[in-house]
Amino acid sequence: MRKRLVVLAILLLCMGVSLFAQESIEALGFSLDVVWLFIGAILVFIMQAGFALVETGLTRAKNATNITMKNVMDFCFGAIVYWAIGWGFMYGKDALGGLIGTDQFFNSPMALDMESGNFYKSWFFQVVFAATAATIVSGAMAERTQFKSYLIYTCFISAFIYPISGHWVWGGGWLAKLGFHDFAGSTVVHSVGGWAALMGAAVLGPRLGKYVKGADGKVSVKAFPGHNIPYAALGVLLLFFGWFGFNGASTGIATVGGGGIWSGLNIARVCVTTTLAASAGAVSSLIFSWIWFKKPDASMTLNGLLAGLVGITAPCAVVSPGASIIIGLIAGVLVVLAVEFIDKVLKIDDPVGASSVHMVCGIFGTLAVGIWGNAPDEGVLGLLHGGGFAQLGKQVIGVVSVGAWAALTSLVLFFIIKAVTGLRVSPKEEMIGLDLSEHKSEAYSGFQIFSNM
Amino acid sequence: MRKRLVVLAILLLCMGVSLFAQESIEALGFSLDVVWLFIGAILVFIMQAGFALVETGLTRAKNATNITMKNVMDFCFGAIVYWAIGWGFMYGKDALGGLIGTDQFFNSPMALDMESGNFYKSWFFQVVFAATAATIVSGAMAERTQFKSYLIYTCFISAFIYPISGHWVWGGGWLAKLGFHDFAGSTVVHSVGGWAALMGAAVLGPRLGKYVKGADGKVSVKAFPGHNIPYAALGVLLLFFGWFGFNGASTGIATVGGGGIWSGLNIARVCVTTTLAASAGAVSSLIFSWIWFKKPDASMTLNGLLAGLVGITAPCAVVSPGASIIIGLIAGVLVVLAVEFIDKVLKIDDPVGASSVHMVCGIFGTLAVGIWGNAPDEGVLGLLHGGGFAQLGKQVIGVVSVGAWAALTSLVLFFIIKAVTGLRVSPKEEMIGLDLSEHKSEAYSGFQIFSNM
Amino acid sequence: MRKRLVVLAILLLCMGVSLFAQESIEALGFSLDVVWLFIGAILVFIMQAGFALVETGLTRAKNATNITMKNVMDFCFGAIVYWAIGWGFMYGKDALGGLIGTDQFFNSPMALDMESGNFYKSWFFQVVFAATAATIVSGAMAERTQFKSYLIYTCFISAFIYPISGHWVWGGGWLAKLGFHDFAGSTVVHSVGGWAALMGAAVLGPRLGKYVKGADGKVSVKAFPGHNIPYAALGVLLLFFGWFGFNGASTGIATVGGGGIWSGLNIARVCVTTTLAASAGAVSSLIFSWIWFKKPDASMTLNGLLAGLVGITAPCAVVSPGASIIIGLIAGVLVVLAVEFIDKVLKIDDPVGASSVHMVCGIFGTLAVGIWGNAPDEGVLGLLHGGGFAQLGKQVIGVVSVGAWAALTSLVLFFIIKAVTGLRVSPKEEMIGLDLSEHKSEAYSGFQIFSNM
Repeated sequence: MRKRLVVLAILLLCMGVSLFAQESIEALGFSLDVVWLFIGAILVFIMQAGFALVETGLTRAKNATNITMKNVMDFCFGAIVYWAIGWGFMYGKDALGGLIGTDQFFNSPMALDMESGNFYKSWFFQVVFAATAATIVSGAMAERTQFKSYLIYTCFISAFIYPISGHWVWGGGWLAKLGFHDFAGSTVVHSVGGWAALMGAAVLGPRLGKYVKGADGKVSVKAFPGHNIPYAALGVLLLFFGWFGFNGASTGIATVGGGGIWSGLNIARVCVTTTLAASAGAVSSLIFSWIWFKKPDASMTLNGLLAGLVGITAPCAVVSPGASIIIGLIAGVLVVLAVEFIDKVLKIDDPVGASSVHMVCGIFGTLAVGIWGNAPDEGVLGLLHGGGFAQLGKQVIGVVSVGAWAALTSLVLFFIIKAVTGLRVSPKEEMIGLDLSEHKSEAYSGFQIFSNM
Repeated sequence: MRKRLVVLAILLLCMGVSLFAQESIEALGFSLDVVWLFIGAILVFIMQAGFALVETGLTRAKNATNITMKNVMDFCFGAIVYWAIGWGFMYGKDALGGLIGTDQFFNSPMALDMESGNFYKSWFFQVVFAATAATIVSGAMAERTQFKSYLIYTCFISAFIYPISGHWVWGGGWLAKLGFHDFAGSTVVHSVGGWAALMGAAVLGPRLGKYVKGADGKVSVKAFPGHNIPYAALGVLLLFFGWFGFNGASTGIATVGGGGIWSGLNIARVCVTTTLAASAGAVSSLIFSWIWFKKPDASMTLNGLLAGLVGITAPCAVVSPGASIIIGLIAGVLVVLAVEFIDKVLKIDDPVGASSVHMVCGIFGTLAVGIWGNAPDEGVLGLLHGGGFAQLGKQVIGVVSVGAWAALTSLVLFFIIKAVTGLRVSPKEEMIGLDLSEHKSEAYSGFQIFSNM
Repeated sequence: MRKRLVVLAILLLCMGVSLFAQESIEALGFSLDVVWLFIGAILVFIMQAGFALVETGLTRAKNATNITMKNVMDFCFGAIVYWAIGWGFMYGKDALGGLIGTDQFFNSPMALDMESGNFYKSWFFQVVFAATAATIVSGAMAERTQFKSYLIYTCFISAFIYPISGHWVWGGGWLAKLGFHDFAGSTVVHSVGGWAALMGAAVLGPRLGKYVKGADGKVSVKAFPGHNIPYAALGVLLLFFGWFGFNGASTGIATVGGGGIWSGLNIARVCVTTTLAASAGAVSSLIFSWIWFKKPDASMTLNGLLAGLVGITAPCAVVSPGASIIIGLIAGVLVVLAVEFIDKVLKIDDPVGASSVHMVCGIFGTLAVGIWGNAPDEGVLGLLHGGGFAQLGKQVIGVVSVGAWAALTSLVLFFIIKAVTGLRVSPKEEMIGLDLSEHKSEAYSGFQIFSNM
């Protein structure tokens, strides 16, 4: 009897040891996941600087203060409204059958969840994504939008437009339930921003002197070259840098546990496919624009690199390196065609090509999941891997529904702003430049700038 | 008997397994902490580039080489003297009742501590903080300080001024024992730098043409606009980026162990409060300067963002997200008031507003711990959370004593330098610009700069 | 009997628990190592932006688009060819007695190794190193090389030249077997890039107007000052930032396991020596150039900082902090001497001093292992630590053999490109600037640039 007790005691001790070690290991794994997630979020944060530099570099010197200020302030306003309102719509308790989140506004769960820190860590990772969607728009609306109106717009996209379609996909909403796959946000982030960008540019109208009707009735399209290509290149490299957090930390974890695409190991695949797609995008847009325009165009090539990044954002975790190169190559060509189409055919003036990069390639990247996707564990099998049109169909539904949501709501938003406070500066202010007319200061005090056009 | 031995053997095996697993887990936890600390330090390092860009952008083109060189070289000289001397004063064996550290100069413990690596890791994290304190000063003294004299100053602050007051708070000195709380250095780093900045600017005197007495005896204050706002904005975003390391890695650990504010989980809270305070600072300074000056001023807004960051640096680990927004909003207004007060009333010429951002908001942030602090486990309870004036009183003592130390020693230092080698360039050199007069080269060779004023 | 079975069962359970915990701990350690390696790789990636800015800043405004595009595209082309070909030569199955790798081309092992992710993680870390070697060359060949020819060159160095000598040292080839020590690549990366840079600059010939023969037959050397010193300084700080990944993550692991220089703890030492050597390099080149040229020269000082970084890259894990300062001080002087020697004596026109920084200081750093190295566990004992000339001899063999390989193959490559497609733009194109002549656009549209020379 006593011996049995001893044996039992040892058994319990063993189990205790086991449980204790297991608990410690789990706690450590949790800590490692948090570290990776936070580094990812911090990397995504610096994309804000990347966008600011790309947009500043590709527009004119007389609007440089204005565009950088828009990029700084959309993060700042966005962070506060996403804390107060946006998070609740995106990750609050699901309602209306997967359409919208309905609680956790204004920090309410933070107090409750101090112990686990779960809420804090998720919010920090999410807020930088929300800011990315918002800041895409500033480029398309550059050089003619009122500063005040831009701030109003940015509060609405961060509080309302982005979070609601985000809820559909990442907040457990109806598209998530459908099996729509958008790993890091080709649709959730980039297409939403890209559609809003296109609507904004369309409602605003083109910059003065952009489309000029000649005596013969033909419209000639004027290009306004950017004032600082090194800024644009530095911006693109910072975006590339930050994108390793954007895609890489979207695994959510760094530990090996889980399986398939949700294993920490998949970080490695994600970084490889991201590198290759971005590189392929730059290469194909360089070569394509070189052949078409007879010059290795800098801004097209830089946009091609971004196109590769946007294109791989949805499929980065479920495609092979070889497929990522193909996706990048296609995105790089697509963005050149889209820039020309929007500029010359649609005659919508998007100064930095934001809608081509983020909307067009965001759509393409989302569909790419349904074509090259190959993650049987996740149930993601694309057209080329025996999945037929099943996944591709879901991807189409996601692209169309999120696109319609973002396009319509932002269209309505811009019309309302236009009616209430006005959206565009006066022609005289536009000629002077937004730096002097809106901010009463120059970006490059002391420098001789010989032309404002 | 034999059975008992078997049972004992199993028991020992169990314990062995347990100890071995526990040791492995602890080693792994240590490794994770090191990784987080190092990433934090690397992020803080890039703040050096942030300061360089902010100061370059907000001053004139003719001094751009000079100001960037100062920002690079204060790190380089600072790192070497902090290795040789500063660390010992800050973290050496306590003497004189908590006033100063007294050993570990010149690498002496490194040889001893190769195994654990503890010294190395702490030194690396600390040296980037020391460099931050030092580099704050360059902005306030911009456009008129001799390069040589600046290098002398920077050796003294990194070897002596910063480490000694640092010892009081972070080296286990008398303020630490008192219960003064400065999580990541609103006082230890920013106020110290800010006070030295103010003293330096005061001893130097204003830039030529800054305060001009008219025929009527009235002094008019001239603003010298910065020559590159995108630099300033990029610099601020790099500072924001690096601040996640500055505040986030000041937990010192990433593992869940510990408790309250010293748990790795608190990283999450720190990043959230840092994000919100910085955003709120930018928002309030934008709105406040828009109302006051009738324009959404870029440099004020950028300084407002930094003000929010400096303000949340001390309390980031002990306040709620809601409180962090309030702290940021106040800091953003405070910095605008301080810039105007120092410029127009005190007539001290601080070209980039360094003393307003780092000294004024560093003081405010330190006091904020005593107002909004709510970390009962740590014994930090502010005025608004039932702590009465106990914590606030300690914060006041810290603010006053460290401020007095930094202000007095740097004042003496600048007077000595002024007497021995001279502090300021000649009026002719100042007119020509420090790039040509000190470094014999232009920052922007080939560019037409139409005015040196 | 039954009792024995029970005891046995408990024993097995104990072992099971032990094994399970051990496996979990190992998996977690692996995850942590991956996280550190990836952060390191991401940091190395941003060095691409650092190089772009340094090279842009130190050359003329009329070539700014061209040089940034070269720095972006050598990464993009390089990533794809290193995926297709380079990796196989470097890390494929060893052949010819340690001379070359022979399999794993085109992603072949990736499919096999999806489970462990090992291949993916190694490839990502390696591709950014390959890109560093390639991009060094663009600076030395700046302002006169055809864009098309540069792209051809960069494919060959990333696919062939860099991977093969890389195989010798890091791929388990003959230099690895010999005991040659190059921790993070003073020779493998920097010297290879530096030799190719020198050969490229020599084959190209100097920029127009660089060496002008006077009426008296004496050749005068003209300096072309860089057009943006803040870019150069920001670039250097980004390189310093990224170098913490370059050197720090070359441990390969972050866990404490292993021993000596391969323990994760050594990250701490590596970061300390890197910081001190870089700082010392900047300090000594500043002081040395101040004495020699009577001015604290910005570009010399910035190159001195880089010289310190290149010099510490090989020995960073095996020398003391004190030795790292000495290495940095020497490298900082060496780079000034080398720049003057190559420019004035050899009359090879290297616009940014790339060969002085990367080739000369890469050689010095590699030899430094044989002088100051002190890692008995690794068998690395330098001249000053009782190792005699044994290690130094091995270092000399590595320096000479890799140098000869890189110099000869790149010399042949540049001659072939010169013969087939041409290497240099026409004198007229060079005068106009490569931005307008090659890319048909200006880098700084709207800015008044008063001189193209």
